[in-house]
Amino acid sequence: MDLSGVYPALTTPFAADGSVSLSDLKYNIERYNSTGLAGYVVLGSTGESVLLSRTEMDGILAAVKEAAGQGKRLIAGTGAESTAETIERTKRAAEFGYHLALVKTPHYYKPAYKPDVLIAHYRRVADASPIPVLLYSVPIFTGVTLEAPEVAVLSEHPNIVGIKESSGHVMRVAEMVAAAPADFQVLTGSAPTLLAGMMVGAKGAILALASALPEKCVELFELVHAGQIEKARELQNVLLRVSKVVASEHAIAGVKFTMDQRGYRGGIPRLPLVPLSEAYKQRIVESLAGLQPLVARA
Amino acid sequence: MDLSGVYPALTTPFAADGSVSLSDLKYNIERYNSTGLAGYVVLGSTGESVLLSRTEMDGILAAVKEAAGQGKRLIAGTGAESTAETIERTKRAAEFGYHLALVKTPHYYKPAYKPDVLIAHYRRVADASPIPVLLYSVPIFTGVTLEAPEVAVLSEHPNIVGIKESSGHVMRVAEMVAAAPADFQVLTGSAPTLLAGMMVGAKGAILALASALPEKCVELFELVHAGQIEKARELQNVLLRVSKVVASEHAIAGVKFTMDQRGYRGGIPRLPLVPLSEAYKQRIVESLAGLQPLVARA
Amino acid sequence: MDLSGVYPALTTPFAADGSVSLSDLKYNIERYNSTGLAGYVVLGSTGESVLLSRTEMDGILAAVKEAAGQGKRLIAGTGAESTAETIERTKRAAEFGYHLALVKTPHYYKPAYKPDVLIAHYRRVADASPIPVLLYSVPIFTGVTLEAPEVAVLSEHPNIVGIKESSGHVMRVAEMVAAAPADFQVLTGSAPTLLAGMMVGAKGAILALASALPEKCVELFELVHAGQIEKARELQNVLLRVSKVVASEHAIAGVKFTMDQRGYRGGIPRLPLVPLSEAYKQRIVESLAGLQPLVARA
Amino acid sequence: MDLSGVYPALTTPFAADGSVSLSDLKYNIERYNSTGLAGYVVLGSTGESVLLSRTEMDGILAAVKEAAGQGKRLIAGTGAESTAETIERTKRAAEFGYHLALVKTPHYYKPAYKPDVLIAHYRRVADASPIPVLLYSVPIFTGVTLEAPEVAVLSEHPNIVGIKESSGHVMRVAEMVAAAPADFQVLTGSAPTLLAGMMVGAKGAILALASALPEKCVELFELVHAGQIEKARELQNVLLRVSKVVASEHAIAGVKFTMDQRGYRGGIPRLPLVPLSEAYKQRIVESLAGLQPLVARA
Repeated sequence: MDLSGVYPALTTPFAADGSVSLSDLKYNIERYNSTGLAGYVVLGSTGESVLLSRTEMDGILAAVKEAAGQGKRLIAGTGAESTAETIERTKRAAEFGYHLALVKTPHYYKPAYKPDVLIAHYRRVADASPIPVLLYSVPIFTGVTLEAPEVAVLSEHPNIVGIKESSGHVMRVAEMVAAAPADFQVLTGSAPTLLAGMMVGAKGAILALASALPEKCVELFELVHAGQIEKARELQNVLLRVSKVVASEHAIAGVKFTMDQRGYRGGIPRLPLVPLSEAYKQRIVESLAGLQPLVARA
Repeated sequence: MDLSGVYPALTTPFAADGSVSLSDLKYNIERYNSTGLAGYVVLGSTGESVLLSRTEMDGILAAVKEAAGQGKRLIAGTGAESTAETIERTKRAAEFGYHLALVKTPHYYKPAYKPDVLIAHYRRVADASPIPVLLYSVPIFTGVTLEAPEVAVLSEHPNIVGIKESSGHVMRVAEMVAAAPADFQVLTGSAPTLLAGMMVGAKGAILALASALPEKCVELFELVHAGQIEKARELQNVLLRVSKVVASEHAIAGVKFTMDQRGYRGGIPRLPLVPLSEAYKQRIVESLAGLQPLVARA
Repeated sequence: MDLSGVYPALTTPFAADGSVSLSDLKYNIERYNSTGLAGYVVLGSTGESVLLSRTEMDGILAAVKEAAGQGKRLIAGTGAESTAETIERTKRAAEFGYHLALVKTPHYYKPAYKPDVLIAHYRRVADASPIPVLLYSVPIFTGVTLEAPEVAVLSEHPNIVGIKESSGHVMRVAEMVAAAPADFQVLTGSAPTLLAGMMVGAKGAILALASALPEKCVELFELVHAGQIEKARELQNVLLRVSKVVASEHAIAGVKFTMDQRGYRGGIPRLPLVPLSEAYKQRIVESLAGLQPLVARA
Repeated sequence: MDLSGVYPALTTPFAADGSVSLSDLKYNIERYNSTGLAGYVVLGSTGESVLLSRTEMDGILAAVKEAAGQGKRLIAGTGAESTAETIERTKRAAEFGYHLALVKTPHYYKPAYKPDVLIAHYRRVADASPIPVLLYSVPIFTGVTLEAPEVAVLSEHPNIVGIKESSGHVMRVAEMVAAAPADFQVLTGSAPTLLAGMMVGAKGAILALASALPEKCVELFELVHAGQIEKARELQNVLLRVSKVVASEHAIAGVKFTMDQRGYRGGIPRLPLVPLSEAYKQRIVESLAGLQPLVARA
């Protein structure tokens, strides 16, 4: 299974009454279907999965499966704090027809989650999972980091096929690529380091920014893939600047607002996350000024 | 409502099949009832609440309510990541007859949880809660810290009566005591700083260690309360040493094993948390060597 | 040698041309002589020692020695990055008649300064020093922290008599007191935790704030010493609030400006440190509003 | 002035009596002269400059100037804690004929060194310097980080021509390249990210590792420069692995020992830095196993 390409970390749209809007979600997917995105990632950090109920998760799994275009790879975030619930969610995603499970590190009991504890956790999940597993390290949210040595150990498990590495440190990507077998696939979760990450061996990316600017992220991937480094660097610099504003400390709200600006249905996040201030919206609008609108407003 | 005193952060015992053992939980409570503990805290960090299902939580709320001796104050951990679920859990705890809700900070989207976002979250919860609210800051697990300025703002809410401050920094306790009105009550969550914390104004403590060594923690509280500082310092030093071993990076497993040593029903934690190594158990046994067993083994 | 009491971490006054003003320094000392300060600490972090030449250091050593009142204990900061230079500076301080050397941790090669490297360094310095040595841990500036286990090891050296613990974590003070022999003396370097630190066994304090508010710091020490905890807590709260403003990220400039406000000669720091903004000066003036001026302006 | 290329951060060899061995230093330079190194950097972090006296620094400046082959660019580390001493050292380096001054951030008073304070410091130094200035950000040692916004501001100064960026975060390199004018030159200080750093616009590198493995570092630079990315990635992976062992927490001692293994004169570091354990030496020897010896042992 070749995971090359760009995947958006999908946002979860909410209706005016605060409930999940599956129709807005499908609306977005239908538009994404015509881009070069390699597939979709639901129920990740960008999807506000930690703010959703199990019922809402099921609705999202079903809606994206239904709306996704042919050939799009489907990845479901299934990491929970307990090993048992992670396995349960993973099986559920498999039942819904998802191709891979993206399993973030457990993180609440940080001091206890030493490499050997994490290795044991992931092995149990991978043993029990009907579908291949992607590790997921996102220290900015979890405070827990997977490093190359434990990733190398886990890469030997036949049902663990890769990792989403979202620390933003290109050196970690390089270390993982160097330490794991050639068929272990590293995807970066950091738009500002897509070029650099691919140069050291990342196969692609899972990006929040690709929910708002899918065609730009795909274009960057393809430029790098084609070895057009000069052009890639120019576009990377544009996305670096945009990403700094959009995916800052206001990450979810920023990406959703940017989606609104680009013809998708973003909306506002769920509490305790709050909408952007008007001043911050203005900063985003300005950062987007140079980009061609690629999707007609609906 | 005077919260003075020592409260154990209760552990959640598991049966051999991995399910919650409410009978072991009641067994412990019945023994605690005869100590000087001021009440009980369920579903906190020590209670592995992030590893429990909603049904299991209900069972625990009911069991402790039922087993608790007269006059014991009942506090339920109700903090979830979303504001809505936090409110729901808080109402549930009130329905079960709990006197206070202990609401930990949301924490997954750390970079977004600025003081004003946290203030808005807590106000919504306190507005909706049928019972008084205790703030709960536990940065070692959450990576989010409540500081004195935001605590002072929140202390003005009529339904927010205090905080469990678990950073272990006595200066924060002092700052909160100094910044909030006199009737706002600070409880420390750190056994090694109980003496120092009370000297700067803490009213008491909610301690994992008090699940294993309730009588020692109560004794320390009472010595400080009575102004017997020399004796208090001696006992504090003992608990400092024990706590360093018991409530280390192996926090939950360590406390549970220590409970086993002291005649309570501790058992092992739920995965991904793992039991202690034999070597580590030995360290704990040695650290406890000087303490009189106060509870007969059952 | 009983180190009980409060010592000011002396500032270094500069003349209009940027040179060290020994006359202003003596002016301050003469005023301090009539307070209850137990002695003086020169060439510490507050003294901008890292910004001074060797010649300037000699001038300061001589001036304070000359101006100090009878019975005042004299402590010189002598920690340099290299072991050899630290020893050289320590011997120099002894020649000038200083009673103790305050030796901060080396810190540039942080990742290399593991406990055993620091222990070896301090042993070499203490072996070579003609005067007793005080360890000095000030992580906010150095990024290196001495913890209780290594302090306990070093406390066995006959020429190491104590530590200035400036992390501000009362638990560390408690741990050091518990781990070291009874005659090893812990002084806190944190004004906001003087009360709490003494309650867990600190013998006194070396404080930047005592350069600006010596009588208030001494009063707090004496209240705690006399067991008048209620009164002590009130005064501690005042100093907590003042210290938060004065000894913030603008530490040196803030203390110097506060000295100016209180009748001492503070002045401005040396570049790259910059003077306070007018707005910040105003914040300090306001924070001092409730304090009686104890020294007539000169 | 085009700074493209690889520069070794030179080590400072010590004789058996602990004094600086200028003859060993020249010995190394003479061997380096026949490699493709673009020049030499003296008195940097790797050069143990914080452990040297002014007299020793002068000796080193003279020796390297004398021994350096024609066309080798000469860079001197001149950053001290005070602005005045930094300027003095910078002028001294110019007098000795050095082409550039490498000025690390001041760092002791970390909380005070906000971007505007650092900008003012660097402007003063650059105004006074007879030679062009390279900024130097090395947070692992200083705890202070230069970020792209302040670097962009400083890049406008006519006498500031570039930066040595040693955080190891490729994203920072990318951000600086994107934010500064095209003629501002970013050199990475991180061997494990040379490939990735160059792909996002770094012009070259100043590397401790290049003191031990100059030809390998130069080869990697040239492969990237020539667009041979596949081969570059292979070599980068080798250097990644070696660097992890050699330039770990034992950085200086590790580089020096590796020099000994490769036919240069490394020796041991100055106290408080300690030599490597035998076990660690063995790890380095093993990590070097696959590399061809390129310099005959002397």
